[in-house]
Amino acid sequence: MNQRALQIGLAGLGTVGTGVYETLCRNHDLLQARTGIPYAVKRVAVRDIHRHREVLIDSSLLTGDWHELVEDPEIDIIIELIGGTDEAYKLVKAALTAHKPVVTGNKALLAEYGSELFRLSAENSTPLYFEASCGGGIPIIQCLQNSLVCNHVRRITGIINGTSNYILSSMERKGVSYRDALSNAQLKGYAEADPTLDVNGWDAAHKALILAMLAYGTPLSPENIAVYGIDRVSPVDFHFARELGYNIKLLVVIRHHEDRDALELRVQPSFISRQHMLSNVYGVFNAIAVHGDIVGETIFYGRGAGKNPTASAVIGDVMLAMRDCRHPEFHSGFHPYTKQLPLLPLEDTVTPYYVRFHVSDTPGVIATIAAELAKFDIGISATMSRGLEGEEEACDLVFLLHACPWGRLCRALDGLKAHREIAPHPAVFRIEKLNEEA
Amino acid sequence: MNQRALQIGLAGLGTVGTGVYETLCRNHDLLQARTGIPYAVKRVAVRDIHRHREVLIDSSLLTGDWHELVEDPEIDIIIELIGGTDEAYKLVKAALTAHKPVVTGNKALLAEYGSELFRLSAENSTPLYFEASCGGGIPIIQCLQNSLVCNHVRRITGIINGTSNYILSSMERKGVSYRDALSNAQLKGYAEADPTLDVNGWDAAHKALILAMLAYGTPLSPENIAVYGIDRVSPVDFHFARELGYNIKLLVVIRHHEDRDALELRVQPSFISRQHMLSNVYGVFNAIAVHGDIVGETIFYGRGAGKNPTASAVIGDVMLAMRDCRHPEFHSGFHPYTKQLPLLPLEDTVTPYYVRFHVSDTPGVIATIAAELAKFDIGISATMSRGLEGEEEACDLVFLLHACPWGRLCRALDGLKAHREIAPHPAVFRIEKLNEEA
Repeated sequence: MNQRALQIGLAGLGTVGTGVYETLCRNHDLLQARTGIPYAVKRVAVRDIHRHREVLIDSSLLTGDWHELVEDPEIDIIIELIGGTDEAYKLVKAALTAHKPVVTGNKALLAEYGSELFRLSAENSTPLYFEASCGGGIPIIQCLQNSLVCNHVRRITGIINGTSNYILSSMERKGVSYRDALSNAQLKGYAEADPTLDVNGWDAAHKALILAMLAYGTPLSPENIAVYGIDRVSPVDFHFARELGYNIKLLVVIRHHEDRDALELRVQPSFISRQHMLSNVYGVFNAIAVHGDIVGETIFYGRGAGKNPTASAVIGDVMLAMRDCRHPEFHSGFHPYTKQLPLLPLEDTVTPYYVRFHVSDTPGVIATIAAELAKFDIGISATMSRGLEGEEEACDLVFLLHACPWGRLCRALDGLKAHREIAPHPAVFRIEKLNEEA
Repeated sequence: MNQRALQIGLAGLGTVGTGVYETLCRNHDLLQARTGIPYAVKRVAVRDIHRHREVLIDSSLLTGDWHELVEDPEIDIIIELIGGTDEAYKLVKAALTAHKPVVTGNKALLAEYGSELFRLSAENSTPLYFEASCGGGIPIIQCLQNSLVCNHVRRITGIINGTSNYILSSMERKGVSYRDALSNAQLKGYAEADPTLDVNGWDAAHKALILAMLAYGTPLSPENIAVYGIDRVSPVDFHFARELGYNIKLLVVIRHHEDRDALELRVQPSFISRQHMLSNVYGVFNAIAVHGDIVGETIFYGRGAGKNPTASAVIGDVMLAMRDCRHPEFHSGFHPYTKQLPLLPLEDTVTPYYVRFHVSDTPGVIATIAAELAKFDIGISATMSRGLEGEEEACDLVFLLHACPWGRLCRALDGLKAHREIAPHPAVFRIEKLNEEA
């Protein structure tokens, strides 16, 4: 047995990098006992080697130049945690070219350069691991890639942005507005000063592209996917959702349509039944439901971000890399294996809907809406209304609609714009049907 | 790249064996594309080669003698799905000795011969995989062993017997008795004609031993673990549980007590908060919550049994075995790495409790019980009572008790036996506190 300790080069000592370094030190004996593989962190690249750090680290390990990691023939594995897509791209490219397996959690990097980097990984028989890029501590990447490998993935439904979920959770539980919930999340450190990418759905979308890549075998580009954020969700929608037995979550939906061999991929706040496990995912937790043709429904739940949960994911990959790096012909990294599937046009995607109109409380308004929906052959399964405090002449009018294509619903809603008693821009949510018979 | 197809020997063509064979054929192209490893099923050992089978299989693949699989130098990997602990033991032992990696789902085999087989596996540098032995399609074994490898496991809490969960689910949802729920489960094929091992908790206990082995590094023997089944759970307890915001689930609890370096390991129907995800696991589904020092709380959910979900787990292992079998020095199989931890005596395990007494409705009975509890320094957090139809003189009296050691509760309950107005054998449930701050 080869007992030379595997040497790790760590690039980046920010929040996650610090968590990784600390855990590799603190739980060193456990890791070595479990894997049987001796290892050491040989070198740590940082931007500024003189900066004061929270973590105790021998300064002789530090370097200000990541090239030293790649060029050191003794370093076996590179962990990329410097973030961004500029230096990180150069580092990962250089490492793969030098046949050093790379572990990264950089979803922006994968979104921008995934196709190129995975091609490079395949050409060099050098794996690129990315468990930490999606779902924080949830081992969804290894599960999709290894444990569930025999499954055609029918559907993935996920709550994969902790900030949005934290905000929606406080709106639901405390009845506060989106603005107040956001401010509160910022105060508590669960939302950044600029929360745009979290609340507009694009962080979730980038992670969804990674999940879709694993499920369907090739990197996808973010063009043309439908992404809606949570900023238009209102407390009144939570009120109606609860009455109707639903909760509202920012959901990622990925579904393969066999008949058209196309992929449905969208991100939007949606109604889900309170009976479904995903509706009970609160706060910064994430959860991903994977429906496979062989395994049926599975769900994976855990902390979606944070120093230590993300470090757990990174180190899970490092241990894989250690096992893989001595037999490059059979590595457990991802390699593309299919052509890219076309995306199903958004207008063709079919679900039931919840639509809330703000209307003048005049006779005939329900008839007007019902007639317009009927014109487009859209069935109504229920209606509810609620008067509004301080607005005696107005009310909220909710319609639950049977499943129909999104495009057809949009045309019906367009037809209602002409009616002055109906305020423009009704609140529209998809109702996701997720339950598999227990 | 070595392109010789890896040859698989499959022993057993019962329900799961058939699922594995069918999936290896049906999803062959997908598996090969994803893993890059060509494979073929070379030989299938069955008890009776002439029996009619549901599955289409070339009869030239069949043999009545599993020795042929082990002795065939071309066969790289053995899948053991013959069940039982007699022939299966001989087969696995022979295969490991012949340096052929083994994939099994046989928890009875691991419970009985785990120590010996894992030692043999280590001595021969030949891995033994067992994802299918616990949690059906849920990839809990690979997750504990690989993805979460850097975590000291603080606690595992699981619903890992589908039959019991199906029965408890119908009792909760339909208000029926244990007997009726069991008969119904038998009618639907979710409980066997002899359901003993499922409903008495021992099936869950055997799986718990496997989880504990992975979490704490060594096979454990089933002696002295506390196992209670579901046959004494009554509809009235579901009534009170619901009133109090709980559900009742057959829970496996594994917890490491650092202060005593001892392991708490028990199986019993327990109260869990309706806020916790595990309380929403219904029917034959399983779920396992793992709390790690680095990752925090994670939950894994899916079908706990059945032909295809179990086949998914087996094939996940087969693919690992394929990757491992050409570099025996770093395989992903389990090897024991610690001495066995002592079990915490049951009497020292501490939780809050729900206790339901059946009493004569006379003045002073609450005072009597409260006084006896006070004598043992056991605090009361709530009491509730409910009259009983047709029994005007009697009622159910429920006490929620603060956390205290089990032994102390037992002594208090013993002290109440002398009182004729209190029926013997009150219903006692632990209240498991599982929530991690979301």
